[in-house]
Amino acid sequence: MATIADIAKKAKVAKSTVSLVINNTGYVSEETRKKVNEAIAELNYVPNILARNLSLRKSNLVGIMVPDIANPFFSEFIKAAENELYLKGYKTLICNTLRSVEREKDYLDMLQRKFMDGLIIGQYELPATCYTQVQCPMVSLDRKVGGEIPIIRSNHEMSSEIIVKEILRNKCRRVVIFAGNATENNPSIKRHNLIEKYLEKYGVEVHTVVTDTPYHLEKIIKDLFDMQTFDGVIGADLYVMECLQEAYRRNIKIPTQFCAIAYDGTYITEVNMLPITTIIQPVNEMAKEAVNILIKLMREEKVEKEEYIIDVKLDIRETTR
Amino acid sequence: MATIADIAKKAKVAKSTVSLVINNTGYVSEETRKKVNEAIAELNYVPNILARNLSLRKSNLVGIMVPDIANPFFSEFIKAAENELYLKGYKTLICNTLRSVEREKDYLDMLQRKFMDGLIIGQYELPATCYTQVQCPMVSLDRKVGGEIPIIRSNHEMSSEIIVKEILRNKCRRVVIFAGNATENNPSIKRHNLIEKYLEKYGVEVHTVVTDTPYHLEKIIKDLFDMQTFDGVIGADLYVMECLQEAYRRNIKIPTQFCAIAYDGTYITEVNMLPITTIIQPVNEMAKEAVNILIKLMREEKVEKEEYIIDVKLDIRETTR
Repeated sequence: MATIADIAKKAKVAKSTVSLVINNTGYVSEETRKKVNEAIAELNYVPNILARNLSLRKSNLVGIMVPDIANPFFSEFIKAAENELYLKGYKTLICNTLRSVEREKDYLDMLQRKFMDGLIIGQYELPATCYTQVQCPMVSLDRKVGGEIPIIRSNHEMSSEIIVKEILRNKCRRVVIFAGNATENNPSIKRHNLIEKYLEKYGVEVHTVVTDTPYHLEKIIKDLFDMQTFDGVIGADLYVMECLQEAYRRNIKIPTQFCAIAYDGTYITEVNMLPITTIIQPVNEMAKEAVNILIKLMREEKVEKEEYIIDVKLDIRETTR
Repeated sequence: MATIADIAKKAKVAKSTVSLVINNTGYVSEETRKKVNEAIAELNYVPNILARNLSLRKSNLVGIMVPDIANPFFSEFIKAAENELYLKGYKTLICNTLRSVEREKDYLDMLQRKFMDGLIIGQYELPATCYTQVQCPMVSLDRKVGGEIPIIRSNHEMSSEIIVKEILRNKCRRVVIFAGNATENNPSIKRHNLIEKYLEKYGVEVHTVVTDTPYHLEKIIKDLFDMQTFDGVIGADLYVMECLQEAYRRNIKIPTQFCAIAYDGTYITEVNMLPITTIIQPVNEMAKEAVNILIKLMREEKVEKEEYIIDVKLDIRETTR
């Protein structure tokens, strides 16, 4: 099998240059890159990682189960987790459920049959017992499952405090909160409840909109603006963006007449025509932590905690003062 | 093994109700859904699809290779392709290259070793010969590879004509085009060249910005606006959004003083504070076609054409008149 030295010899460059090209980690001129890539092709160079994996007699496949990979939070999470898994010698299987329990069951079955070595649960709809009775390596993102399945989540308590401070600093008096579906096993509910409690303590009026589906969202938002009494909104990226569209249409001045704070804080809040003040969920750190804990479980090592909590931060952009 | 009939009996509902719950295809009350899911959990119901696949003695894994799954065009493509593949009994492996040729080589090697049954090439950096010498089922998205690897792409000629008409209808006189890197094996270059040629024929001045990386983009855009002479922009979603941010900061009226037309037309153009007029790339149709052609190749059936071209459409929103 060809080695980096063979490629370097063939392309008449240093081994370090070959390494730069194959890892894409530094500047190499177009011409040199072309020579190296041609040598790689001619010698049919195969990196070592697969050979190493094959000897371990595992599938080396890890599933990431999400309801919708096109949701920017999940696509950023998968990108980061896939990279982390790749570096540790694992390949990533997409388990996009589209909220169908049949698909969920199918993916869980693949885990049980050792088609995958482990599973990251981004969201689930099946009863938690379906998961807890499966004796395979799993970690859960943000949602409690039970049994011995560890959770990796962002610090919702911290989010709540930061959001409340920012609302008070902006002197908002009547705020709309878009909350997730309260019937779900979803700890972000905790965040909403805390925000509501704190804001009311400081005399800020809170109107909570529970949204488990995006249907009718446009009408709900129009109705809210027709009432003309709100001066702030808090919610997931896409809900806040819908509100900003309506505010812009109505010529409402942001942030002087109306403030907005998003969370998830995926890149779509940054590329919006008016960059949005947002809680940044630490998606890269969450992905790294989830992969590291899962790898421990796959190696049958002990994990220390049931819950891994990662701090968030506020990025003040142009929708608050 | 438990069947749908067993679940129906256990949950005391009709078989059709069980089917609605597991496929998530219609309205079922929360209570009934709960009963059905509990029965599924208790009986440890396993859908048939895996059992069928196992008997075929294939990996039933298909790779989708992209430079960045968090890019909304690719995340929407993967979502649609994964769904299509799932329905045909295949699972989807993410091959996120981050433009590293070592990763590309690694994924290609997995294909050669039959770890995957087929590969959808979303972008590649290795010399095309690396692909053409591999005798495995592959299709390419948008980019020519060579050999017998079919291409699935949107109709760039049609895009160009539609964009030019829209620019002329809006009476723009000086337009900026953000073009991809011309050194790439990228047929979207064709689109840019056609647009430039047509617009110049009609006396519209064109300024082309070649952007292979997002670095310095902000400065380039500031400089363009400092020249104060442009009244339109054409480019990929994210480039157009950057321009709109700058136009908004400078209080430039859109679309009366400045027009914008994006392509890819992913959902981020729709949720922007000012919804963006865009060419919609038919990402679902492209994904379906790519999967169907790949499945034919995996079954060793003949495919008819080298190139499959899918029509685009214009969605006029609020950044053109």
